Amino acid sequence: MSGFTALSEAELNDLYVALQNEYETYKSKNLHLDMSRGKPSPKQLDLSMGMLDVVTSKDAMTAEDGTDVRNYGGLTGLPETKKFFADVLNLKPEQIIIGGNSSLNMMHDTIARAMTHGVCDSKTPWGELPKVKFLAPSPGYDRHFAICELFNIEMITVDMKADGPDMDQVEKLVAEDEAIKGIWCVPKYSNPDGITYSDEVVDRLASMKTKADDFRIFWDDAYAVHHLTDTPDTLKDIFQAIEEAGYPNRVFMFASTSKITFPGSGVALMASSPDNVSFTQKQLSIQTIGPDKINQLRHLRFFQNPEGLKEHMKKHAAIIKPKFDLVLSILDEKLGGKDIAEWHKPNGGYFISLNTLDHCAKAVVQKAKEAGVTMTGAGATYPYGKDPLDRNIRIAPTFPALEELEQAIDIFTLCVQLVSIEKLLSEKSQSAPTA
Amino acid sequence: MSGFTALSEAELNDLYVALQNEYETYKSKNLHLDMSRGKPSPKQLDLSMGMLDVVTSKDAMTAEDGTDVRNYGGLTGLPETKKFFADVLNLKPEQIIIGGNSSLNMMHDTIARAMTHGVCDSKTPWGELPKVKFLAPSPGYDRHFAICELFNIEMITVDMKADGPDMDQVEKLVAEDEAIKGIWCVPKYSNPDGITYSDEVVDRLASMKTKADDFRIFWDDAYAVHHLTDTPDTLKDIFQAIEEAGYPNRVFMFASTSKITFPGSGVALMASSPDNVSFTQKQLSIQTIGPDKINQLRHLRFFQNPEGLKEHMKKHAAIIKPKFDLVLSILDEKLGGKDIAEWHKPNGGYFISLNTLDHCAKAVVQKAKEAGVTMTGAGATYPYGKDPLDRNIRIAPTFPALEELEQAIDIFTLCVQLVSIEKLLSEKSQSAPTA
Repeated sequence: MSGFTALSEAELNDLYVALQNEYETYKSKNLHLDMSRGKPSPKQLDLSMGMLDVVTSKDAMTAEDGTDVRNYGGLTGLPETKKFFADVLNLKPEQIIIGGNSSLNMMHDTIARAMTHGVCDSKTPWGELPKVKFLAPSPGYDRHFAICELFNIEMITVDMKADGPDMDQVEKLVAEDEAIKGIWCVPKYSNPDGITYSDEVVDRLASMKTKADDFRIFWDDAYAVHHLTDTPDTLKDIFQAIEEAGYPNRVFMFASTSKITFPGSGVALMASSPDNVSFTQKQLSIQTIGPDKINQLRHLRFFQNPEGLKEHMKKHAAIIKPKFDLVLSILDEKLGGKDIAEWHKPNGGYFISLNTLDHCAKAVVQKAKEAGVTMTGAGATYPYGKDPLDRNIRIAPTFPALEELEQAIDIFTLCVQLVSIEKLLSEKSQSAPTA
Repeated sequence: MSGFTALSEAELNDLYVALQNEYETYKSKNLHLDMSRGKPSPKQLDLSMGMLDVVTSKDAMTAEDGTDVRNYGGLTGLPETKKFFADVLNLKPEQIIIGGNSSLNMMHDTIARAMTHGVCDSKTPWGELPKVKFLAPSPGYDRHFAICELFNIEMITVDMKADGPDMDQVEKLVAEDEAIKGIWCVPKYSNPDGITYSDEVVDRLASMKTKADDFRIFWDDAYAVHHLTDTPDTLKDIFQAIEEAGYPNRVFMFASTSKITFPGSGVALMASSPDNVSFTQKQLSIQTIGPDKINQLRHLRFFQNPEGLKEHMKKHAAIIKPKFDLVLSILDEKLGGKDIAEWHKPNGGYFISLNTLDHCAKAVVQKAKEAGVTMTGAGATYPYGKDPLDRNIRIAPTFPALEELEQAIDIFTLCVQLVSIEKLLSEKSQSAPTA
């Protein structure tokens, strides 16, 4: 079938009736399918159950340096935890601060600290400035944007391109406006596009001139090891790049095992320069006595070494790749070549991002909901929930079982087609001669 | 022996020489004893090892409402966790927000939130006010004071009496000064005095008129169930008292299992009014996706019910009461009736607080250090580390083994006597006729 735009009004009408029939059949089934949740499925969680057996009452409770992991202490994490994640993420152990179970919490707290105390290069706490702004490459992660909203940080939307944020826009903005203090980045298998920043983008981020001396890149490396293929994307080392560019304090990096072991009981971390780490650590020592060291030990004993973690991630891929493949094959089959939607095939991460025709996303999500399929809300992937072209929809394939997923994505593609035809018909009627 | 003050200069000199000999003997032993750490001993930690065996790969991973505890979610804790702690602490489940492993972290974050957003009755975020002050009943807990310092909150020291803060001072201050936004309280087995607030103190705190509409009591119920006797102190229910007084939003309460199970891997909570909980929860939902639910399950299965927790606390008491008894008996034996030190015998908690003669505490701690005994730094129990009379010393008996403790406290009492005699002799020489 050729593109919908090539079809006549009559052809579109006929097609609409046929698709509408399919849609009504689904609707009568009273389904409850959820494709909104970017979370691991129970089968993925089962992969880590062994982690619950490696720290029992029969096991040693001491870290390598003799620390009793049950007691107070270990503000920034056990030395061996830092070493392990340094190996996994190509960092130095002294760059790392281990946190609790949530990297989101560490991102929030890093912004909260900057608001009340600034960062190590700040002349003034950000909260005392008349205005603080962040760049928000979009589509992006709604929880990043929510943190900015909470602290009344104005977000400036920057376009995402096939290899990362539009760096022409970024460079121009940060060079001109001192109020711009940061940028959100999910540099690998980005949320939701699933793209990985090119070396050029990393280099330009690292070396660009910023008007603000205390500009920070919030580098959320959420999917660092979450590959779907044997030929994974590679991401250039930004710490090396900022070091070479002479901006060693520019990056706060974040990661966690939330989508490696257990989302509720993982280990989170942040990484940065010696100055940033020591500045953060000083405040951290007032905030807490230290994160859960027993849970760190659980992770270390379960994986044994970085290779163990890599093998573990292959098991995740074996479970979720068929889901991604299923979604992509249905998208291809039902929407391919119709000129009504675009999407990217990711090599890792948790999402597929689809753009509809302009001004159709909300209507598609609504129509899917009426047939019992919950999608992430349209607009969620943009600052303030406002997608300027109302076209981006985030698809989260990991949680539902394959059968559910097949039904859900089938209904979803029906909705995309129906809403697209409605739009095309309405355009045709508007452009028709008024007699 | 009668009081030192009744002794002549010659008698004091003779005594000094004898005590100094004992001190030098200890000093030559090159000891390394630490009485500074308010933390459980390894034997106490061993009591909770069973908690590591109740959530293994063979156990169910679902909460009562079917929630998979391994996955994301449960922002304010599992319903059964709230119910359990509500039963233990005489609260309503809906009052409770379960946190991570640290109640200190929840206190810090509560203040941090108030600085950037105010509390639910605030007209202005505290951080935007020209000045914010807190009352700091002292001696008190240095980590409370450190949070105030971090956020540039001015502390006003209020005296501690035998039944709690000096309420005449407190009432006068809060009635007059709108900048006073809060007070730190450890109402049961207070840190470091080990006293429990009287009903009258609780009632006066609950019903006092405050100039600030958004005044908050930070009620750190750290030792709620940490009794040393079978006839424990009882603390009046402050939530009922503020409800009756018409100030339902006045109290943020905090507690944790840090000194019940594992200090590094416990469960923390805060409790407050519906308005405070909902105000906090809104910001919390941006900060994190939720605390570790597996660890909540571990606690619930280990204790089974509130009675189980009570029985568990008796085992703690059996280990630490002999340590408290030993310290108190040596203090009695060596310092009793000498008019050079005062202390209170606590019915629970983690500390014994001793007051020396005025302006002797720093010298005592220093002298003890020179003989290999580390005490909590003198002054630490007061805001900004400054004890105006330089007389309070916090003794932490729980961590060292009995034998160590005996040596350490013996040396400590020698130091108290030596420094006291130095002071008395210096006073005598100053008051002597100059002829």
